[in-house]
Amino acid sequence: MSVDPRLSINQATIKYADLATALRVTADAGIQAIGLWREPVNEVGLPIAAKMLADSGLRFTTHCRGGFFTLPDGPARVAALDDNRRAIEETATLAAAGATGSTAILVLVAGGLPEGSRDLAGARERVRDAIGELAPDAAAAGVTLAIEPLHPMYVTDRAVVSTLGQALDIASDFAPSVVGATVDTFHVFWDPDVYTQIERAGREGRIATYQVCDWKTPLPADVLLGRHYPGDGVIDIASLTRAVEGTGYAGDIEVEIFNADVWAADPAHVVRRTAEAFGEAVSPHLSAALDSA
Amino acid sequence: MSVDPRLSINQATIKYADLATALRVTADAGIQAIGLWREPVNEVGLPIAAKMLADSGLRFTTHCRGGFFTLPDGPARVAALDDNRRAIEETATLAAAGATGSTAILVLVAGGLPEGSRDLAGARERVRDAIGELAPDAAAAGVTLAIEPLHPMYVTDRAVVSTLGQALDIASDFAPSVVGATVDTFHVFWDPDVYTQIERAGREGRIATYQVCDWKTPLPADVLLGRHYPGDGVIDIASLTRAVEGTGYAGDIEVEIFNADVWAADPAHVVRRTAEAFGEAVSPHLSAALDSA
Repeated sequence: MSVDPRLSINQATIKYADLATALRVTADAGIQAIGLWREPVNEVGLPIAAKMLADSGLRFTTHCRGGFFTLPDGPARVAALDDNRRAIEETATLAAAGATGSTAILVLVAGGLPEGSRDLAGARERVRDAIGELAPDAAAAGVTLAIEPLHPMYVTDRAVVSTLGQALDIASDFAPSVVGATVDTFHVFWDPDVYTQIERAGREGRIATYQVCDWKTPLPADVLLGRHYPGDGVIDIASLTRAVEGTGYAGDIEVEIFNADVWAADPAHVVRRTAEAFGEAVSPHLSAALDSA
Repeated sequence: MSVDPRLSINQATIKYADLATALRVTADAGIQAIGLWREPVNEVGLPIAAKMLADSGLRFTTHCRGGFFTLPDGPARVAALDDNRRAIEETATLAAAGATGSTAILVLVAGGLPEGSRDLAGARERVRDAIGELAPDAAAAGVTLAIEPLHPMYVTDRAVVSTLGQALDIASDFAPSVVGATVDTFHVFWDPDVYTQIERAGREGRIATYQVCDWKTPLPADVLLGRHYPGDGVIDIASLTRAVEGTGYAGDIEVEIFNADVWAADPAHVVRRTAEAFGEAVSPHLSAALDSA
């Protein structure tokens, strides 16, 4: 089975692989692209990471992740914004180092409620403000900030941005090349408005990246880890993928799985299994496949 | 501390108390109202349950619960609708037996995806169809069906109705006296549109019942049981309560807590603790309190 050329492995899927291993197993599996995480990149240092990425021949699709800027004014907020500026620089550097077709996209996870706060609306306003502060830096670096709405079960401890519509509302203050959205099947599939908002996101030029994984119940004890290989759960990945493709999205598609069993497996096996799952659950619904059907 | 006259104990908060115990501890605590569940009612039989309720002197606020009608056509769907018709009758009987001010409200939990299905849109349409089949029975019995949007983490295994706006869209096909919505802080607080939709629900006369409990993280291993006493978590119960009150809602307010620790405690203690929590977290934001402030 040939590997879909649009598949990108998000490094979180093989969380315990270091950067060298992640790049190697991905390329060895015949996969053409990868999305990286800041921690393993900074473990080796940015210049070396960029060199390793270039040597791998892989396209670079996203950098994960910025955000976590719901704090009120003060030193911690300043530090968070400074850290996001470093993430923007990393994104630009890695995108330049990746193979032709790499994209400079920084995924933003908004952050939850500050300790002791019940003010969701206020936290959401601070997300908008923070993106406003970072947008000039992103524009200067040629980086797109991709606001990721997270499933509402993470609203208070991880991301106060809970729907694609809300992400698009925030993004609307900025140019689409500077602020877009991350559309991740796991986070948005439940939304009664998801197809309307995907169409809107496409029309507004805001689909910065499309990520795919699956959902099934019961959720694990740590609800962060309930993500599965595409096709293993109950998300209608076919319809969501056709909807995203229908907007004209033609970029790489990441698979990002947080799952203790997947993380415990051999990363070389995981990337091959991911490629198979993608070929079965996603590829048949991509435009090229539909055109040739 | 006097007990707020608008507090109603939802029987699920003292899940392991039988009907007699539930009625006794609630009345003994000085609480005036109770919402019942079908299982403990049917354990003693409806006529006896109605007599026990009447003898308790408590108002009856809701019956929990109908719904679970996302199945496709077939015997199981017919059985589910028949069971809902029995629930409607139970609701009418209990409301007639409760003290003056009782309300005939049947809470509806939609149900999740049928086994093996990924078709959320289809399941949602079947909810609308089922309510259409039940509406004449509810109207004839003088019962209001209260569609309860559940938090999106339950979308596939428990309730495909995930937002208040979605519940109101379904309800809009029917008279407000026949089909309304359940507004439960735990299920709706995360929604960026919640205040808009509460205002809309009030304007459209659809707030059948308002329920209060709290959310905090980390969620427990069984995410169904992550509900807490009002004030113990991070939901902005003050603002939500003022928004509901602001629509003119003047009904009883239930506290419904699913929580293994609460369930393991002495029910007499739990209802007293609930009354205290309600007095601190909810009462100050009710219209009467605001008027006299």
